[in-house]
Amino acid sequence: MNSCFSPLLEHLIKTLQYLPGIGPKSAQRLAFYLLDTPKNKTIAQELSKALSDAATAIHYCKKCRNFSETDICDLCNNKSRESRLLCIVETPSDVIAIEKSGGYRGHYFVLRGRLSPLDGIGPEEIGLNLLAEQLKNASEIQEIIIATNHTVEGEATAYYISELVKPFNVKITRIARGVPLGGELEYVDSRTIAEALNHRVNVDVRIED
Amino acid sequence: MNSCFSPLLEHLIKTLQYLPGIGPKSAQRLAFYLLDTPKNKTIAQELSKALSDAATAIHYCKKCRNFSETDICDLCNNKSRESRLLCIVETPSDVIAIEKSGGYRGHYFVLRGRLSPLDGIGPEEIGLNLLAEQLKNASEIQEIIIATNHTVEGEATAYYISELVKPFNVKITRIARGVPLGGELEYVDSRTIAEALNHRVNVDVRIED
Repeated sequence: MNSCFSPLLEHLIKTLQYLPGIGPKSAQRLAFYLLDTPKNKTIAQELSKALSDAATAIHYCKKCRNFSETDICDLCNNKSRESRLLCIVETPSDVIAIEKSGGYRGHYFVLRGRLSPLDGIGPEEIGLNLLAEQLKNASEIQEIIIATNHTVEGEATAYYISELVKPFNVKITRIARGVPLGGELEYVDSRTIAEALNHRVNVDVRIED
Repeated sequence: MNSCFSPLLEHLIKTLQYLPGIGPKSAQRLAFYLLDTPKNKTIAQELSKALSDAATAIHYCKKCRNFSETDICDLCNNKSRESRLLCIVETPSDVIAIEKSGGYRGHYFVLRGRLSPLDGIGPEEIGLNLLAEQLKNASEIQEIIIATNHTVEGEATAYYISELVKPFNVKITRIARGVPLGGELEYVDSRTIAEALNHRVNVDVRIED
């Protein structure tokens, strides 16, 4: 019923709907916004260029599998970071989340997924062969922090990795589960509370760094 | 804190945030999605091209002020539509809404806004000089349906247009206000109910077409 539009506008609205979370209404609103004024058209052109440039130039770091324009990403190349620590996360977003926390200065390994045999996602699909290879060659790594999500798949992946990593004689840790800071017990789900009780720690005792 | 990213990726995330309703988190999610797999990168390239093509080629119809690739849009050029009817709407989205209703076969005039003197939007900004000119020259138009929104600015704009159009000896109508179809009185706001009572109609009597 959009036949009252020009073909290019229809095509733009259709293409915008490929984006996650953008339905027909939002796509229409975005398209109208981007064509509304000369200033907005400049934004459209800028966005067009940014998309094309990024899609052309950005690949994956050959070491950590995070997004990168170069073969090895800046973070992996950063000599000021502690090479004895390797944190394994599910997605590039998790890298940002941890970087934002400011509590970590080591390196990362990005799985870009989690084990899910039913969806055909095995160890190779999440780069675990690459990880094993790196552990064989790089003797610098002393601790592997498994920071996959505390979901069923995340836990299964964490278990698989811990088994995979065992032979390499490195310390294996898992990010702590518990009640989030600022979280009131009343509003925290019961499974989290049960886990927080199970993993209770002695006061003033922490895992050694 | 996004310094763990490549410059092109950061730029893409920043540019996506110019879109209405897209914040830092959504922009990041969209960017990651568009770069995730070769298939998604194809979408990114396609979207890039669609944006650029649309922003370059799409302008406004010189007659109805709707989006168009040509000087006069397809809808204005469509000889099968009734040239005696002209419906005045605020935005291109309103054109779609009315077209979807299937209840109208005339032409449109798109204000692309509403009178709002405090924001510097006067009659010229919403194309009323163009409308007056068309009415002077085109004797075909017999009825003008004012379909601006039932808001304060929309009503003010409707009043202004009705005053402007009076000298041209055409029938002036306004889309009806009332309780929406499927709307239950219990959940309809009180102003709408008051208006629906004020504009009550005799059973089996409608405005003549």
